Amino acid sequence: MNFLSDTTAPAHPALIDAIAAANRDFAPSYGADPLTAQVEARLKAVFETDLKLLFAVSGTASNALALSVLCPSHGAILCHDEAHIHRDERGAPEFFTGGGKLIPLKGAHAKIDLAELDRALAEIPEGFVHTSPVRVLSLSNLSESGTAYSPAEIDERAGRLQDRPAFVHMDGARFANALVTLGCTPAELTWKAGIDALCFGATKNGALGAEAVILFPSVMDRFEELQARQKRAGHMAPKMRFMAAQFDAWLADDLWLDLARTANDRARALAADFRNIDGAEVLHPVDGNEIFVRLDDALAARLRSAGAQFYQWPDGSARFVTSWCTTEAEIASALGAL
Amino acid sequence: MNFLSDTTAPAHPALIDAIAAANRDFAPSYGADPLTAQVEARLKAVFETDLKLLFAVSGTASNALALSVLCPSHGAILCHDEAHIHRDERGAPEFFTGGGKLIPLKGAHAKIDLAELDRALAEIPEGFVHTSPVRVLSLSNLSESGTAYSPAEIDERAGRLQDRPAFVHMDGARFANALVTLGCTPAELTWKAGIDALCFGATKNGALGAEAVILFPSVMDRFEELQARQKRAGHMAPKMRFMAAQFDAWLADDLWLDLARTANDRARALAADFRNIDGAEVLHPVDGNEIFVRLDDALAARLRSAGAQFYQWPDGSARFVTSWCTTEAEIASALGAL
Amino acid sequence: MNFLSDTTAPAHPALIDAIAAANRDFAPSYGADPLTAQVEARLKAVFETDLKLLFAVSGTASNALALSVLCPSHGAILCHDEAHIHRDERGAPEFFTGGGKLIPLKGAHAKIDLAELDRALAEIPEGFVHTSPVRVLSLSNLSESGTAYSPAEIDERAGRLQDRPAFVHMDGARFANALVTLGCTPAELTWKAGIDALCFGATKNGALGAEAVILFPSVMDRFEELQARQKRAGHMAPKMRFMAAQFDAWLADDLWLDLARTANDRARALAADFRNIDGAEVLHPVDGNEIFVRLDDALAARLRSAGAQFYQWPDGSARFVTSWCTTEAEIASALGAL
Amino acid sequence: MNFLSDTTAPAHPALIDAIAAANRDFAPSYGADPLTAQVEARLKAVFETDLKLLFAVSGTASNALALSVLCPSHGAILCHDEAHIHRDERGAPEFFTGGGKLIPLKGAHAKIDLAELDRALAEIPEGFVHTSPVRVLSLSNLSESGTAYSPAEIDERAGRLQDRPAFVHMDGARFANALVTLGCTPAELTWKAGIDALCFGATKNGALGAEAVILFPSVMDRFEELQARQKRAGHMAPKMRFMAAQFDAWLADDLWLDLARTANDRARALAADFRNIDGAEVLHPVDGNEIFVRLDDALAARLRSAGAQFYQWPDGSARFVTSWCTTEAEIASALGAL
Repeated sequence: MNFLSDTTAPAHPALIDAIAAANRDFAPSYGADPLTAQVEARLKAVFETDLKLLFAVSGTASNALALSVLCPSHGAILCHDEAHIHRDERGAPEFFTGGGKLIPLKGAHAKIDLAELDRALAEIPEGFVHTSPVRVLSLSNLSESGTAYSPAEIDERAGRLQDRPAFVHMDGARFANALVTLGCTPAELTWKAGIDALCFGATKNGALGAEAVILFPSVMDRFEELQARQKRAGHMAPKMRFMAAQFDAWLADDLWLDLARTANDRARALAADFRNIDGAEVLHPVDGNEIFVRLDDALAARLRSAGAQFYQWPDGSARFVTSWCTTEAEIASALGAL
Repeated sequence: MNFLSDTTAPAHPALIDAIAAANRDFAPSYGADPLTAQVEARLKAVFETDLKLLFAVSGTASNALALSVLCPSHGAILCHDEAHIHRDERGAPEFFTGGGKLIPLKGAHAKIDLAELDRALAEIPEGFVHTSPVRVLSLSNLSESGTAYSPAEIDERAGRLQDRPAFVHMDGARFANALVTLGCTPAELTWKAGIDALCFGATKNGALGAEAVILFPSVMDRFEELQARQKRAGHMAPKMRFMAAQFDAWLADDLWLDLARTANDRARALAADFRNIDGAEVLHPVDGNEIFVRLDDALAARLRSAGAQFYQWPDGSARFVTSWCTTEAEIASALGAL
Repeated sequence: MNFLSDTTAPAHPALIDAIAAANRDFAPSYGADPLTAQVEARLKAVFETDLKLLFAVSGTASNALALSVLCPSHGAILCHDEAHIHRDERGAPEFFTGGGKLIPLKGAHAKIDLAELDRALAEIPEGFVHTSPVRVLSLSNLSESGTAYSPAEIDERAGRLQDRPAFVHMDGARFANALVTLGCTPAELTWKAGIDALCFGATKNGALGAEAVILFPSVMDRFEELQARQKRAGHMAPKMRFMAAQFDAWLADDLWLDLARTANDRARALAADFRNIDGAEVLHPVDGNEIFVRLDDALAARLRSAGAQFYQWPDGSARFVTSWCTTEAEIASALGAL
Repeated sequence: MNFLSDTTAPAHPALIDAIAAANRDFAPSYGADPLTAQVEARLKAVFETDLKLLFAVSGTASNALALSVLCPSHGAILCHDEAHIHRDERGAPEFFTGGGKLIPLKGAHAKIDLAELDRALAEIPEGFVHTSPVRVLSLSNLSESGTAYSPAEIDERAGRLQDRPAFVHMDGARFANALVTLGCTPAELTWKAGIDALCFGATKNGALGAEAVILFPSVMDRFEELQARQKRAGHMAPKMRFMAAQFDAWLADDLWLDLARTANDRARALAADFRNIDGAEVLHPVDGNEIFVRLDDALAARLRSAGAQFYQWPDGSARFVTSWCTTEAEIASALGAL
């Protein structure tokens, strides 16, 4: 009953097999290998559009690299106050952009409130040399509270930046989890709703360590710059075929969607259990594979002594994360303990 | 009736005279001149302590330089959400620190609320590699709303960081204005209350262009680093004697205090007028030379047509700034227009 | 006959197996897993000393991370003019250090000439605020010309910095290749000769993608800073166990030394062939797995038409790189073509 | 007999007077004042072209600001190995560009050798992601050895970059000194010869502290970016009128040319004296106000005991700098001592 994080889970065996299969003969390095090209082709089909692809070894890297080609060193990035890029990346966006400013906004369930966004935009004029202008709006989907922005919610927020030379970035470390819950297409959840660049995470959903930065057509002209920054940040792995192999197997036969669906199903089941129990209060909609629940002490103790592992969140709640390998038996055990 | 900003005011004639007087013979460059040494000696007397001094040409420069020796590139700086370093310096602190993170806090009258500070500190643990740790608390005195922190208020906030390897910075662009209102000593308002580094502004209070970064004994060991960063940022002016000359004349015979007193007196008088008028609401305590007042449209129009110049503030209020050269006659004219 | 680069070679199967074996159950993320601890223990044995270990995904990353904790943002790094950190990392050291300066030095066979080093040090005084002081000497072993510094050569160069607050860094992307040729111990080639930090590469010698930054006792106090910078640069991979697994298998039973020995043997054999042929001139001592040879056009054409792949180097020579999987048959084929 | 540096000289009295005259009434801050506009108009006449102007407080600042809008953070700047930007600015260009790389080139008399430039360009391909591409060629005029590039020499070097997306920067800290010696027009020495941006120094030639960054039409579209970076670096002085006043008086009636002519005349006279004396060897052409001379010990001692002050240069020579206020009597005294 390990509910600590989807980063503590193992990788799906199919990805290990793919790595072994890729380990034949010589292959061009630094992303010029045929597997990387094949993944790009797969992603064009998945997202129903032309796009540019680049791999990175962590979500922090992919977010910071993407932001660094969207926001100049003297620009600003709007994000939720609890966003991973603001709270959990040790200043990576500031570092990679060369000093860009993050401006945190409030909003329930870790989703940026529209009125807050409007207020921030009203306070930050264009063309005033003393103030960092807004160049990026960053949305996390899933959010830090495990909730999802719908295409309409994204479109509404992206629209607010239409009259500025600004872009919309999506931190999609758990993109698959949001997608299968919303039931829309990858295209609808991204570029059709105004997303310019997506950080598409596989690591938390079955990979060993592989994240993709995807530039949609509106910002594809920045790909050369992105590659230069990837190299300069040490993220252009020499034997890139092994990252590509992971993504290739993960995308094949919709494995990535199946894995996310499993994780989400387990989370929903566990959340349902919590909702039926006195002393537990589920704090946010469970749109993916994360549950935040306020537990009374007795309940928490009972769970722990039954072997359940989970994190205490800064707001006092308990966070339970399911993954592609969480079993129905584990959920049943947790229910038993409750 | 120019109430736009104290940066649009001329310099006090005594400082021009001092520059002319300093313009004799050869003098060592880059701060090794005798006038700079004399200013440092004067400041030691003013602040009743040993200290290290370095000049900069703008408040943005002095703040960013000071912060860059207090906060590592992967650390965080707590400041008020309306602080100059967060809103009006185009990301200079992020740039000078090499990517440090600013975390904005709320609080009435642009002073950091204690509960907000406590909440932020509780949310940011020490020793957690993923989160930028708090390394600086920055207080503006005067604040962006023209209010002053008392020594007790500073001490209270500084005390909250006592168990962290963190420092307290004061943005004192209008330090003199706060000081003469509070009636305490410079020492009481700074190092005795827990301030480690002060950015001590003269430009807004009668200088042509001169700001001092002052390191108090608790951080004096960082002076060599500060000089290296001053040089590297192009702020080590070759003919430093001309900055020193300004500060020298400004500190002589308490001219700096007289100038601040005059500006404050004018502001208090104008504020009193506003308080007696229907249609005007003074929004913050007037602790220095700035008044923020909500004006009804008719009043605002009347003032403008009488020749009064002032800024519309982002929150909808009107900002009036007095300076060392604002006259009683101008205040009387403004009253007449009201 | 692929002699393009050791980064185009596959990984050794034992490392794939190790990854598969590590893919069981949940494991702490971000380097807190038991395999990472086991690799650190192995390295302490290999280097006969206490040390600190951190993984990175590329040589560029490990070099830049190491340099960033040795050189302040206003310091300088001495390196050979052809060093990878100067020529082939797209400014990564400048980026990671926050603006540190690289000062390139000359020397035959890509090894820093002692007289050049002395001249550079004489020109760069300590304590002169206008000049970036020397804070790091970086040595590449193997060098960019495939030559090795002996322990005595390292010691001699490191000794020149003894009276400065400076450190010695080794770019060991091909450390194993140098080591087996020199026949000394890892300790003798590093900390005993004055090396403070080693970037220990496995990728070019049989790994999928794994580099280690090793801090020896003289700089172990910088490990916390190194971790913060690793995180901030996006190099703290969530599922670190998969990097650790590679290193673990690579170090086990001296596999890493066997792989390097094979690559070196093949290179020496090929070099011997070149030396016996008219129209080929081997330009540098072959101390590892790289041969730089000036070929007349007919010879080059003959090799290419026989299927040999190799790079044209900027100086006009041809570079042949062997790897752990280069076979004797390939060397024989090359000889046949010659 | 102070020959230490033109930065130790006082300012010309006309500039002090201009500052006093500018100290009337309120004036818009941050460069929006009428005097700044007037200086820009004057410069357009001087350089016979449209241009954009921005002030900075030091040569280091103006160089680094100019370079930061010409070179991306992952690009490279070619300069002479002895260039001020490489040797004497503590890494300011690396800092302001966000990590750009300086590549030092050799050449007699501190002027970049054409063959060296060609070699460097041949070694640095365009479009190779691993190597920082050349984006700027920086020429110092006067050079660090006091020599001048002629328009033809500039044109020849600038032409080498024609097929790259690269720019040519001139460090003109002593631009006036070069100009009056060459006898060409300011336009001929800059944009007509291929210069895109000029750092035009006044401080060493009679100002208190004022340097101008000038963008010629080829790069004028970068002015908004330059202003943003000026602000972010703390170089947008609030009361900019006092910098403008200096430049205004300096440009009026060709005062700047007269001052440079005086300094150059004195240098030429002193150099002639050295050339006539046994035991002194003038090392470089004296194209401006600097003389580098190898002195035997007796001569050096005689000069010092007669009261002459000068610097020992790193190469063992003695540097004598004359300035606008060096008198014929001083030159005569020096001759007497010789």
